[in-house]
Amino acid sequence: MRVDIANALAETSPVGVPREALDRLDDRVATAHETIQNGREEDAFGYASLNLPETTDPDAIRAAVAPFADATAVLTVGIGGSALGAATLATALGDDTETYFLDNVDPAHLRSLLDELPLAETAVNVVSRSGTTAETLANFLVVREEMAAAGVDWTERTLVTTGPSGNLRDLAEEYDLPALDVPTGVPGRFSALSTVGLAVPAIAGVDIEGVLAGARSAAADMTGSLFETPAYAYGATLFALDRREASVAAMMPYAESLEPFAEWFAQLWAESLGKDGLGQTPVRALGATDQHSQLQLYRAGPLDKVVTLLRPTTGPDHPIPNADLDGLDYLGGNSLRELLDAEFEATEASLAKSGQPTVTVEIERVNSESLGALLFEMEAACILAGELYDVETFTQPAVEWGKERARQLLRGESAQASDRLVVE
Amino acid sequence: MRVDIANALAETSPVGVPREALDRLDDRVATAHETIQNGREEDAFGYASLNLPETTDPDAIRAAVAPFADATAVLTVGIGGSALGAATLATALGDDTETYFLDNVDPAHLRSLLDELPLAETAVNVVSRSGTTAETLANFLVVREEMAAAGVDWTERTLVTTGPSGNLRDLAEEYDLPALDVPTGVPGRFSALSTVGLAVPAIAGVDIEGVLAGARSAAADMTGSLFETPAYAYGATLFALDRREASVAAMMPYAESLEPFAEWFAQLWAESLGKDGLGQTPVRALGATDQHSQLQLYRAGPLDKVVTLLRPTTGPDHPIPNADLDGLDYLGGNSLRELLDAEFEATEASLAKSGQPTVTVEIERVNSESLGALLFEMEAACILAGELYDVETFTQPAVEWGKERARQLLRGESAQASDRLVVE
Repeated sequence: MRVDIANALAETSPVGVPREALDRLDDRVATAHETIQNGREEDAFGYASLNLPETTDPDAIRAAVAPFADATAVLTVGIGGSALGAATLATALGDDTETYFLDNVDPAHLRSLLDELPLAETAVNVVSRSGTTAETLANFLVVREEMAAAGVDWTERTLVTTGPSGNLRDLAEEYDLPALDVPTGVPGRFSALSTVGLAVPAIAGVDIEGVLAGARSAAADMTGSLFETPAYAYGATLFALDRREASVAAMMPYAESLEPFAEWFAQLWAESLGKDGLGQTPVRALGATDQHSQLQLYRAGPLDKVVTLLRPTTGPDHPIPNADLDGLDYLGGNSLRELLDAEFEATEASLAKSGQPTVTVEIERVNSESLGALLFEMEAACILAGELYDVETFTQPAVEWGKERARQLLRGESAQASDRLVVE
Repeated sequence: MRVDIANALAETSPVGVPREALDRLDDRVATAHETIQNGREEDAFGYASLNLPETTDPDAIRAAVAPFADATAVLTVGIGGSALGAATLATALGDDTETYFLDNVDPAHLRSLLDELPLAETAVNVVSRSGTTAETLANFLVVREEMAAAGVDWTERTLVTTGPSGNLRDLAEEYDLPALDVPTGVPGRFSALSTVGLAVPAIAGVDIEGVLAGARSAAADMTGSLFETPAYAYGATLFALDRREASVAAMMPYAESLEPFAEWFAQLWAESLGKDGLGQTPVRALGATDQHSQLQLYRAGPLDKVVTLLRPTTGPDHPIPNADLDGLDYLGGNSLRELLDAEFEATEASLAKSGQPTVTVEIERVNSESLGALLFEMEAACILAGELYDVETFTQPAVEWGKERARQLLRGESAQASDRLVVE
């Protein structure tokens, strides 16, 4: 990716980063880079994520999904990091295979999804490292029952992606299901470039070898300086802005097919850095659509944000047909991409003018190499930011309390009644 | 709706609102309520939005969409407020009619959408008050051309929703298209309960009369006190929290079909209140999914948020099939809704325990009456908040600069080159 941080500097924005501060921060980046490289060499927990472009075996994935070559639809049963990487790649790069992600436990939604799916032609990938994720297992039990009721042999339509032991591993062994191993040392939100993120895209026709090659190429270019490494430029700039005023990090791709990427980024950023009272709030936006929704706030609201404007610089295009329209003469002879690009550049300029810091990220095109590099570089950016914040990037301890409370509630253990102030 | 603000109080959260401060704020709510009521009586700009439940004529909408009774798909060509209200209602309440919203100008997306649509069975609703919205008109010209190329008479498949004059009005007159009037005095983001928000849901089988009845019923219950009026309890609490620490307002419905509602809310809140350096940043979230993405940050990050937890208290259900699963005994005998409800309550408790303020909003069920009331009450909450912030709730002046710049770029007028600091 190509990162432009000029509009995040104090020269442009009153809440921007002084250039000298970035120069000083680059010393910390160098130290963090050493930590990251050492972690990679030792394949240490979390840092091992950045080795996935080398360690992931695309042939093993191809072999595991081979039985589903005929599938017209693929259903991922998984939540959080078990779904978002695959959704990002399949949505941006997939062919006509319909991909569905069952990443919630809403019974109304599940019902309508089951009614829509051609079960006999659907491949199901059930993904949970532990095999004990409540939402995933509950959903899978329903899907399995539904397939059986429809006369579909679920054991012929199910792929399991899980750790070395647990319910799903037992299931795979009992029914001789194709199974993929979740890599060790890789938190779910960093697993897009592993079996977890690549199996469903492989079924949907994505060039997963190209995804991994793009990531490897980005990995090879990393140095210890933010002024040479786009991932570090991005991570260090967002960190430096947060230390000033930017408590919100909006991710605004100008490509409809990258909407799931913004969701993936939001999990990566929130769950990795949101700890010890620190962490920016990621906001998922979409260009040009959200110019008609969020831009008023971004321009005229508090200067407490950094907006990442992300675009592919090339892509398919379509001419705008000529028509004699009042006040729209300027559209004449232009194409939809020219309109979209003009809106991108106008939004970039308008945010700069209002003093709201932005970072511009460009990829060449929405293709497998660019997406592989983008995911890898955003993970590296996040890991760098974690080093700069000095937080434990790879854990998510704060969600445990709620999981235990939910289990208690389901067991019928009553919780202490809480205070209420109800208006109805 | 039923609003519980106990977890937004200082008794629960270190950044919560002291009860006495709410008591004092209620005087300002009474004054604002008078302003709002006067505005409604005069049908003044913006305030007229709250009269839509009375002034919208569902029969006119039914008549305009009657020619499309056979449509199996409906495509809305519109952006921002021209799309989000209709998307919210059609997604939550619609029948099997496929609804699509062309609210961006991405040529790759438009191409795949056109390839997917059964054009001969598709109704197109092109929505723009002025008839000069660049994205909408450009998209419509492409859709029209595509229909013609496919041998479909676009004049038989197109509904126009627009103001009294302009390109779309001219088009409707020239080709004798069915046309609906955009109401006067109502900004786009407040138009969900008008022709703009109801036409497409009507085609998709939504009981739009029920939607309006629900809104009327909510309107009838309004008083000048936040302790009696759920809409004001909500708007005043979010305002009071923002005056303290909560610069972020996360909207987290626990119902997949309400995901577009969160988008609608984000536009309403951002574009109405984001001005003069003020305004909370709305964040669209989804329960239970985002417990595996955003909850770590909400619990362990900065106490700078208010999280709205929204749920229907009843709805369809599905049992979780029994299975002998290790570590998941607590699922036994429970249903998916019981699991979802347990997660809702556990998340509410876990955020309270971490000190992050929350507001709980409950609706009885995802049905037309509840949704009509919810949209109306959120609009009233937003208008109240605008009075309390003392901003111009109904305008969006900050987006004009970018629109003009985009027009200049498309006309080939070169913009001043801006500084760059590129890392690649």
